[in-house]
Amino acid sequence: MSAADVVEALKGRGETVATAESLTAGLVTAALTDVPGSSAVVRGGLVVYATDLKHALAGVDAALLAQHGAVHPEVARQLAEGARERCGATWGLGLTGVAGPDPQDGVAPGTVHIGLSGPSGSFVSTLTLGGDRDEVRKSSTTAALDLLRDHLELPVE
Amino acid sequence: MSAADVVEALKGRGETVATAESLTAGLVTAALTDVPGSSAVVRGGLVVYATDLKHALAGVDAALLAQHGAVHPEVARQLAEGARERCGATWGLGLTGVAGPDPQDGVAPGTVHIGLSGPSGSFVSTLTLGGDRDEVRKSSTTAALDLLRDHLELPVE
Repeated sequence: MSAADVVEALKGRGETVATAESLTAGLVTAALTDVPGSSAVVRGGLVVYATDLKHALAGVDAALLAQHGAVHPEVARQLAEGARERCGATWGLGLTGVAGPDPQDGVAPGTVHIGLSGPSGSFVSTLTLGGDRDEVRKSSTTAALDLLRDHLELPVE
Repeated sequence: MSAADVVEALKGRGETVATAESLTAGLVTAALTDVPGSSAVVRGGLVVYATDLKHALAGVDAALLAQHGAVHPEVARQLAEGARERCGATWGLGLTGVAGPDPQDGVAPGTVHIGLSGPSGSFVSTLTLGGDRDEVRKSSTTAALDLLRDHLELPVE
């Protein structure tokens, strides 16, 4: 179970996590907190479904959103940074993408950007997922947890 | 389906919703956005798992949290108001409670307070739910959606 692995790894490192979710809209945070004892490592999150809330709640550059729309790698990176900073966590996860069934801002369903921000910087993973709306959201949640888990397997910085 | 009913009712009224979730940690927002087309009515939400984030992100009175802990009807009411105000929505839902398996702040698992804030005021529903951690979180999510749906069946104010 990805979520349990992440919670265990964070506990071992004495670190915390926060999220800023768009297409998953709370699924990542809900998965993490499904693990008993997760309150020791989960700070919370921002569900930034409306585009303007990505700026207002998570601090994503408004000009970036205006120019490129909400589904862009740099938006995911800034969401991760915003989650980390505004929720006071060691790690921040940011997710933006198109769950479907319709395209958004000219981007096809299944396109998902996942940002991870940590003590030594931030980066973005871009996925092209198949399946319907429900499957895209679930696969995105799993991918975000896997991304963080893989980073937590590295030595403590 | 509660979530689909809520989305449909909000669309019919031209209104929006936002959340501030503690024990459910994103489940309510995730359920609402599981409905295709929900972006027209779901603004977003605040996942305030850590007690200090209930103040920092949702504006819950810090003295109230210090005096009564996080699981209190007035906390749920203020979470609902904070969600509505900070996310710019017509309606705000706020959830706080104990999912278990352990008590929190001296409160037994299954105790859940759900706040609803709308154009004409706010109120709180308190539940005592049975079941394990997963069941308490799922029942709380359903109860929150039902609470809002019941209010949306009233005439437009």
